[in-house]
Amino acid sequence: MNVLEALKHRKTTDYVSPRNEGEEVILCGFVRNIRIVSKKLKFVILEDFKGDVQLIFKDDITPELILKRVDELTLQSVICVKGVIHKTSLTKRSIEVIVRDLEVLSKSKPQLPIDISGSTNISLSKRLNWRFLDLRSKRKHLIFTLLSEFERYSREFFYKNDFIEIHSPKLMGAASESGAEVFRVEYFGRKVYLAQSPQFYKQMAMCAGFERVFEIAPVFRANPSFTSRHDTEFTSLDIEMSYISSVEDVMSFEEKWIAYVLKKLKEKWGDIIQEEFGIRIKVPSLPFPRIKMKDAYEILKNMNVSVQEGDDLGTLGEKALSKYVKEELKHDFVFIVEFPWKVRPFYHMRPEGNKTITSSFDLLWNGLEITTGAQREHRYDVLVEQAREKGLNINNLKFYLDFFKYGCPPHGGFGLSPTRFIMCLLKLENVKEATFLPRDPKRLFP
Amino acid sequence: MNVLEALKHRKTTDYVSPRNEGEEVILCGFVRNIRIVSKKLKFVILEDFKGDVQLIFKDDITPELILKRVDELTLQSVICVKGVIHKTSLTKRSIEVIVRDLEVLSKSKPQLPIDISGSTNISLSKRLNWRFLDLRSKRKHLIFTLLSEFERYSREFFYKNDFIEIHSPKLMGAASESGAEVFRVEYFGRKVYLAQSPQFYKQMAMCAGFERVFEIAPVFRANPSFTSRHDTEFTSLDIEMSYISSVEDVMSFEEKWIAYVLKKLKEKWGDIIQEEFGIRIKVPSLPFPRIKMKDAYEILKNMNVSVQEGDDLGTLGEKALSKYVKEELKHDFVFIVEFPWKVRPFYHMRPEGNKTITSSFDLLWNGLEITTGAQREHRYDVLVEQAREKGLNINNLKFYLDFFKYGCPPHGGFGLSPTRFIMCLLKLENVKEATFLPRDPKRLFP
Repeated sequence: MNVLEALKHRKTTDYVSPRNEGEEVILCGFVRNIRIVSKKLKFVILEDFKGDVQLIFKDDITPELILKRVDELTLQSVICVKGVIHKTSLTKRSIEVIVRDLEVLSKSKPQLPIDISGSTNISLSKRLNWRFLDLRSKRKHLIFTLLSEFERYSREFFYKNDFIEIHSPKLMGAASESGAEVFRVEYFGRKVYLAQSPQFYKQMAMCAGFERVFEIAPVFRANPSFTSRHDTEFTSLDIEMSYISSVEDVMSFEEKWIAYVLKKLKEKWGDIIQEEFGIRIKVPSLPFPRIKMKDAYEILKNMNVSVQEGDDLGTLGEKALSKYVKEELKHDFVFIVEFPWKVRPFYHMRPEGNKTITSSFDLLWNGLEITTGAQREHRYDVLVEQAREKGLNINNLKFYLDFFKYGCPPHGGFGLSPTRFIMCLLKLENVKEATFLPRDPKRLFP
Repeated sequence: MNVLEALKHRKTTDYVSPRNEGEEVILCGFVRNIRIVSKKLKFVILEDFKGDVQLIFKDDITPELILKRVDELTLQSVICVKGVIHKTSLTKRSIEVIVRDLEVLSKSKPQLPIDISGSTNISLSKRLNWRFLDLRSKRKHLIFTLLSEFERYSREFFYKNDFIEIHSPKLMGAASESGAEVFRVEYFGRKVYLAQSPQFYKQMAMCAGFERVFEIAPVFRANPSFTSRHDTEFTSLDIEMSYISSVEDVMSFEEKWIAYVLKKLKEKWGDIIQEEFGIRIKVPSLPFPRIKMKDAYEILKNMNVSVQEGDDLGTLGEKALSKYVKEELKHDFVFIVEFPWKVRPFYHMRPEGNKTITSSFDLLWNGLEITTGAQREHRYDVLVEQAREKGLNINNLKFYLDFFKYGCPPHGGFGLSPTRFIMCLLKLENVKEATFLPRDPKRLFP
């Protein structure tokens, strides 16, 4: 076979269907399984990014030279085959390819450093060390396809609603929020910082009159802890919108977006998600329930979950509250609103006449927090006062506070981690499963 | 006016059209101009992200209190008005709004730190210091809308062609390519690096069987020079595709994509681009011309442009060659192919039987390089040999070289900077004009 010529005519495995029976086809992919029945009859499972197909090698059709090549094949090698599509009752897909020619494009070493059969005996850490092998499965390809599709339909929704995407800088002259958990970069002899969020810059876009922006981009958190929900680098989806009447407008936008995306994912991927993960996607009804923090404390008290009034709910509180919402309000999502000022950053707006709470929210999905959002304080004097109240150094914030001196629309927004969304959607045990190459305090390779 | 109630019913300026004459409308936006004709007659230009509209205040309709408020208005303040849509022959758009009520949502200080009238007397540097004010113009909003739209239609094309988007890490345990011009990050007591490109990781996706991936994300280059084409941080669009027959497949994909996006941009934005920038978008014919480097040297020699054989063309060489292509081949684009091995990285493939050149290309658009691409060397032994030949430390590259030990499809790809694309499209003088918040060795604020 002339491989370079063959590659020009390559088809993917989804082309191998009863409709195309009898056609000669060229396929390329990884060798996932080899079964040598006899010198005269051999089977290989070939997998590409569209799926897999059984290749059959038998001596009445396959030349002897090619039959011999099968014996030398190693699992995970990349091959190119030419053969004829053939109906059969012996495979799940009722179709196979009878091979006439085979070339090895890239031979795998016979021993893999990890077991990639899907065994649960192998640790996540070991799998991540060999991530490129670990990802070689339909299930894992599906995770990353869904991540891509989640972002695709999110953008679709944002564009329909007049948003544009911005790219805010990740290198900052001053730390973006508190200065805690920020990475420092050596920058031509000075120290600069990696952005923990695009917060200040998406607000700057509002001051520049952009009105509706979003960004899907990496953020960096020098968080030394190891949990199933945190990485030191992750992708953040952020939106910011102007001329809101209250934080309610932000929540209303968010719930419509989530319902839209889940509907799209269900339509296109619902069946395969059920097959691979045993999960039925539910498109949530609108509006999502809203619970005020002061009521949340009360509910948790009645459930004997100890949360100090004025504090965040914590992981346990969030889980318990979601359980309550699921049972009492029959909903998987819930907005917790009016967070105490004490646990929110200085730029969250406080409602008129009550300085102890903020016009902010978290969104929980089946017990896990997926979003923090708020109306922002856009009034310069109030904002400066709030920064002082939080004990922040006004000088360090000057570049940000300046944004609000020359006219700024009322605005608000939120942030969400797409990987965490997929983790919730597929009920994955660890956010790292939905991260292409996770980073934590000890992990920087590959 | 109850502002919070009014915000719920806000319309944007595009709603103000002859079709809606006589309707009461609520508008919000920035005050771009104020003209006080008399105590009884005043004009204000209000601008939002959809455009602008003339507001008219006159004493037979506008209450006295509101007429007085106009006197206290400052330019760039953010206001909310209620008024009636009214046809007129006195404005360009033949429409205006007669105002009955006005509230100031956010008052601008009367003196702006920079002139934002569009004057060319003000330096780029000064404008960038006050970027949020600098961006307050239709022309500048259009630049960033087009950047967003470029990415939108690019993704549309990539999805149609079975690509998914990945998010590769920006924090790396080892420098991504040569180690030169790389930023170092303090990471829990050790030194790590900021990715100069997603190169190694998009190739890893190929080894994981993803076959077709793209990424639009920030990259970081510790380039100490100041030019109109370079920043220390910029957004890079990268693609990588498997089972190519040769680098020609990559070029063929790229030219189709560029023609697709330019067609989409022309259809939707052609008129307004012509109005604001005086530029007519040309949708290029396919295929783009291809010129081999050895022929390029010859052509340049004949044009008396001095370029050493075996070297890169350099800025002057690229411009001259594009001029030649424009005149002789009547095309704005040209692929330069078969770059010398000397000027390409170790992972570019070399064609069979010729070790002095690579299966690589650059794409020039009107004299500016917008893409570098190549087929990658996917054969482990050859790749190791090439790294050695370039004098690289194999140990530092181990994590990358491992990708190729266990089966890897032949693959190739390219990178392009969307901001540079927009710079070329709109013939901007500096790439910083298309960068939301540019970063260079001295610029880290705002």
